[in-house]
Amino acid sequence: MKLKNGSEVMTVWREGSIVKMIDQRPLPFELKIVDLNNTEELWHSIKDMYTRGAGAIGVTAGFGMAQIALQNANLSPKKLIQKLEEAKEYLDTARPTAVNLMHATERTLNRGKEAAKEGGTDNIIKAVVDEADEIFEEDQRAATKMAEYGGKLIKEGWSILTHCNAGALAFSGLWGTATGPIRWAQQHGKKIFVFVDETRPRCQGARLTAWEMAQEGIDYAIIVDNANSHFIQRGKVDIVFVGSDRIAANGDVCNKIGTLGIALACNHYNVPFYVVAPRMTIDYEMDNGMDVIIEERDEEEVTCMSGMNYEKEERTKIRIAQVNANAKNIAFDVTPAEFVTGIITEFGVLEASREGLAKIKDLPPI
Amino acid sequence: MKLKNGSEVMTVWREGSIVKMIDQRPLPFELKIVDLNNTEELWHSIKDMYTRGAGAIGVTAGFGMAQIALQNANLSPKKLIQKLEEAKEYLDTARPTAVNLMHATERTLNRGKEAAKEGGTDNIIKAVVDEADEIFEEDQRAATKMAEYGGKLIKEGWSILTHCNAGALAFSGLWGTATGPIRWAQQHGKKIFVFVDETRPRCQGARLTAWEMAQEGIDYAIIVDNANSHFIQRGKVDIVFVGSDRIAANGDVCNKIGTLGIALACNHYNVPFYVVAPRMTIDYEMDNGMDVIIEERDEEEVTCMSGMNYEKEERTKIRIAQVNANAKNIAFDVTPAEFVTGIITEFGVLEASREGLAKIKDLPPI
Repeated sequence: MKLKNGSEVMTVWREGSIVKMIDQRPLPFELKIVDLNNTEELWHSIKDMYTRGAGAIGVTAGFGMAQIALQNANLSPKKLIQKLEEAKEYLDTARPTAVNLMHATERTLNRGKEAAKEGGTDNIIKAVVDEADEIFEEDQRAATKMAEYGGKLIKEGWSILTHCNAGALAFSGLWGTATGPIRWAQQHGKKIFVFVDETRPRCQGARLTAWEMAQEGIDYAIIVDNANSHFIQRGKVDIVFVGSDRIAANGDVCNKIGTLGIALACNHYNVPFYVVAPRMTIDYEMDNGMDVIIEERDEEEVTCMSGMNYEKEERTKIRIAQVNANAKNIAFDVTPAEFVTGIITEFGVLEASREGLAKIKDLPPI
Repeated sequence: MKLKNGSEVMTVWREGSIVKMIDQRPLPFELKIVDLNNTEELWHSIKDMYTRGAGAIGVTAGFGMAQIALQNANLSPKKLIQKLEEAKEYLDTARPTAVNLMHATERTLNRGKEAAKEGGTDNIIKAVVDEADEIFEEDQRAATKMAEYGGKLIKEGWSILTHCNAGALAFSGLWGTATGPIRWAQQHGKKIFVFVDETRPRCQGARLTAWEMAQEGIDYAIIVDNANSHFIQRGKVDIVFVGSDRIAANGDVCNKIGTLGIALACNHYNVPFYVVAPRMTIDYEMDNGMDVIIEERDEEEVTCMSGMNYEKEERTKIRIAQVNANAKNIAFDVTPAEFVTGIITEFGVLEASREGLAKIKDLPPI
């Protein structure tokens, strides 16, 4: 993404066999770039959430496979493939539910195996690195297309509401998904304003999306999640963009908790509600969203909060409820397709329906 | 309210000329009872939010007037009335938007003036103290009636959702408004469960309502506000009770930000949505809720949070967003009458409509 100082930074990129990434954990208090020098460090970067978001995890995993290949140029073709297989197995354990992670390790491994049929170690290395770079570039191309398709929906002077961080930080590159259209509109000279839901419990909106907006000089305000329906009711929100973790074949959208509430308000007050997500987010095997098993997370995410101590500059965790307070912490909700105005993919804006999504199922990658 | 140790404590009460109250600011970390020995201390208890909530503020102000009367038994009737007039003027400035505050100081002052026509200083003191005690008792009676009317709507095994703290802490006594029916159902042997919205930005749900529930042994869980529509969608919420700051003559309900979102979800998924509020909350002069001027509060309530340091037991304030992050902080929203299943008052359950509310406008106090 673009930074305040005018430079650009990617969420994750490759310099030879070194993988570099923004460590998102100290954001928005510190922009820290880390070098991942080996597979263990890379594994930890995913496991410990230096990076998060479907796209970014996939790209990181691909680069991890490229790194293994580049660091083992001394091995025989057979031993290198074996090493890559071990690396895949290991990397896949970093976030077992992340489909993109497995997908990226599999793609790079298979490409390496293909190459092994026709040549030596150098050939395998080149194939794996090329595939990893291709995953990175696909992520860029898809994000650029989604930004444009979504950005064209935004009119001069509009206010946009977004939830959580489906921003550049959740993908490898410059756009993000839900923030792509916002950036595109800004870059095309439109005057816009962004309502950033803080997104309890982990506050990715307040911490990450607000930081991204500030970096790019986009006019924004953080609001508590409670306030989004008020601004929708009062006609202050012209359009909503959110990301998605998983879209069912019928168009139901699984996304960060709170998305459903926004969709209900938009539905009642006739505000367009768009989901921005690449095709890989669509799970054509899942008939409808109500089949998703909803992840229940640690209660402490609700009863405690982390941030910067107000008096002395140090990260501090506080408890906001009584000791041993009971809490329920639901990570995601499901927005029925009927509330979704459209799903913005790299292939265009689709109707949130079985027919709409089927149209792009078998197209070649862009 | 009832405490864990089996004892009962009021939010505010009078012992002779001393006014005693729960200082709500250190809750839920410490239950602190303070003595208010003079008008300055009493003024600060309202101004600095030791106490909050319409009922509690009214009762406190009434007791403040009784205190002035009791502490000035040496004055002539004329001088005492003058002293009471000064006290009213001063106390009214503690929270200029609190209707109950002015109402209570006016009632006690007028009663004192009446008494002055027929007797001496003693007569005035008795009249003012009686009126203050009557305000306190009216608050109790109204809360008891609302608890019963609402409690009878709760069926065995139901789950209830509530927002913010319209609890005993917001009124003088044992019930509260939105929590009254919950307590009543519990006391009548019904098995219930309560979803407590944390209620950002000030987290009165997580801090106060959850504490009240735990004190009384009522089964509950704090949820982030983002999660309420999910639980409503999944059929986990059987009924909703919220309080109100102001109800317009047409039944529109002004309440803590986030109430509208709950009402929209209840409306869509056919979950009964009740507002519990004494008649004094109804502003018959306000034609409809959209006329309310919405209070915009300090941005820091959104970008910062206070709580107990997780490592060392001390109150700590943290910043959860970047330095100088922009935020908008809207204190209240307006839920249109069409989404309100009923308004539970001390006179019974009313339809949220002009006709429904008009029925109780001129009834004598209960």
